[in-house]
Amino acid sequence: MRVRRGRLVTIEGGEGAGKSSVLAELRAALAAAGHEVVVTREPGGTPTAEAIRALMLDPAHAGMAAEAELLLAFAARAQHVHECVLPALARGATVLSDRFTDASFAYQGAGRGIPTQRIAELERWAARVRPDLTLLLDVGVAQGLERARSRGGEPDRIEREQDGFFERVRGAYLARAAAEPARFRVIDATRPQAEVAAAVRAVLHAWLGEA
Amino acid sequence: MRVRRGRLVTIEGGEGAGKSSVLAELRAALAAAGHEVVVTREPGGTPTAEAIRALMLDPAHAGMAAEAELLLAFAARAQHVHECVLPALARGATVLSDRFTDASFAYQGAGRGIPTQRIAELERWAARVRPDLTLLLDVGVAQGLERARSRGGEPDRIEREQDGFFERVRGAYLARAAAEPARFRVIDATRPQAEVAAAVRAVLHAWLGEA
Repeated sequence: MRVRRGRLVTIEGGEGAGKSSVLAELRAALAAAGHEVVVTREPGGTPTAEAIRALMLDPAHAGMAAEAELLLAFAARAQHVHECVLPALARGATVLSDRFTDASFAYQGAGRGIPTQRIAELERWAARVRPDLTLLLDVGVAQGLERARSRGGEPDRIEREQDGFFERVRGAYLARAAAEPARFRVIDATRPQAEVAAAVRAVLHAWLGEA
Repeated sequence: MRVRRGRLVTIEGGEGAGKSSVLAELRAALAAAGHEVVVTREPGGTPTAEAIRALMLDPAHAGMAAEAELLLAFAARAQHVHECVLPALARGATVLSDRFTDASFAYQGAGRGIPTQRIAELERWAARVRPDLTLLLDVGVAQGLERARSRGGEPDRIEREQDGFFERVRGAYLARAAAEPARFRVIDATRPQAEVAAAVRAVLHAWLGEA
């Protein structure tokens, strides 16, 4: 394992939580603080991992087994960590990832019903790194889905799920945040974008001050 | 879990071992014995699993991490078992698969150096079934590769490996066969095709007599 000098910051949240705006805000604030910032996403972040993402989210694979979905998510993650995240951390960069392993606990764990222990075991050897800071953008399921749908575009395979699925995903994210308060910051994403941005900057500056 | 009434027969072996001919021989012999035979392969066997196979073997993904390769193999397997193998076994069919989990122990375990315990853990919850009978077609690496290359065609990502990789794969297959003599039958695949076919029929008839 390489020496890890940089830090991993992740953004999590359900559909329509506003992750893209927050990502841009964080990137600018970290760059202004003098960090080399590597912006990436999951599933994806490298050409092979993006190919796995495309397969995983393709509505053509509507009959995908829950276990297959979980293993594809971790195949993409193993590649992403190996090729992008670990090299960036080794050279001291701050990696900013739109979703990471928490999403597997929320979507494939709570959403699909896969036991947490299986996901934790994959996290140990296939993800290998855990985030230093995770911003959870929280919004009610109905409001989030309305926002996501207003963006237009064809929903992907997972976006086509029922509301109950997204309720379980939200509940799992909030439970994880409550269980790990030192790592998580929950941002109320129902507020206007400028307020969310201000909250994000405040969280980041406090964290940079502590760290 | 569904009731399992049928049986799973797998064929394993390295490059150029002659799996296709043996598969045809077994299919005919099982059908002649009155079995409903479902012929399938790994990675693959369903549309989603075949899409995973195509991604996994594409030489464009030359930098694929070993862990990503293993997880793709098991993602395809989870889908294959869920959608094809278990339903066929439940209705009493004999499933005949060109490669199965032993290939992950050989290729990703011995070939890529992934610890056996991780693969055994995935076998437990993602593969869920183990073969009832496995025919291992054994041929020396140099002879097998020569045969495989004489078939022409572009080698896939794994076929491009070095001889040392295939030696480790062969060694792992033979070690697994030695450790589980009740399940494995090792066939000397260096012999002329008619002799191999006769050996395969003899193995099958003995097994059907026992079972």
